[in-house]
Amino acid sequence: MFALDPRLATDTRLVASLPLCDVQLMNDARYAWLVLVPRRSGLVEIADLDEDDQATLWREVNLASRALRAVAPCDKLNLGALGNIVRQLHVHIVARCAGDAAWPGPVWGHGQAQPYAGPALQQRLAALRYAFKAPD
Amino acid sequence: MFALDPRLATDTRLVASLPLCDVQLMNDARYAWLVLVPRRSGLVEIADLDEDDQATLWREVNLASRALRAVAPCDKLNLGALGNIVRQLHVHIVARCAGDAAWPGPVWGHGQAQPYAGPALQQRLAALRYAFKAPD
Repeated sequence: MFALDPRLATDTRLVASLPLCDVQLMNDARYAWLVLVPRRSGLVEIADLDEDDQATLWREVNLASRALRAVAPCDKLNLGALGNIVRQLHVHIVARCAGDAAWPGPVWGHGQAQPYAGPALQQRLAALRYAFKAPD
Repeated sequence: MFALDPRLATDTRLVASLPLCDVQLMNDARYAWLVLVPRRSGLVEIADLDEDDQATLWREVNLASRALRAVAPCDKLNLGALGNIVRQLHVHIVARCAGDAAWPGPVWGHGQAQPYAGPALQQRLAALRYAFKAPD
């Protein structure tokens, strides 16, 4: 049975459940950062998904990329599937801005997360949920 | 007209030309590391490819992942599309081994590339080309 990896559960908040993936927001105010987690147990590599599920994954990555850009204009999207630490299959989509904390390097493993302060977390979640429901 | 970004041209060597992408080997002996570059000019984000080309891209990522694993057994594949420095759309596939130079962090921006020595570059290119032609 699928259960979100404990580290992801600690570090992220649920934005939306798409047909295949749960979309989680990283609780790190330094970057607008989504993590897509297919709700299938035992997945590690993208190749562990069958062909149809892979197609769905990339469709959902597109949807999430559009929603992220709508709430957080950026200079570049960064896409990553690493899994060296958290092995449960997950795909990162990060809105990068020139001059952000890790620019131009990758965000993974860079410094410490800065949790959203006050109402900012709920505001970002609300904006993202709205963006996921908006037509293209 | 498509031309490979000058930095990628310096840092990589051509392995194979697939229908959409050129597959390049990063000339860095620290990791078995491929870069897929769609032969279309002006692309920056994955969303700049139309739906059919995106499907082809992910199919070619699968192919390249299999070929890479065949020549470089690893603990985890890392997939990344960053483009913060080289804007031309390109997708990294890196065979990661526990204890490698950047483990468990990302390879991007970590230390200096160590070019393959002696015949190792040609050997790796030959092994990869063979793997791309081998049946699944």
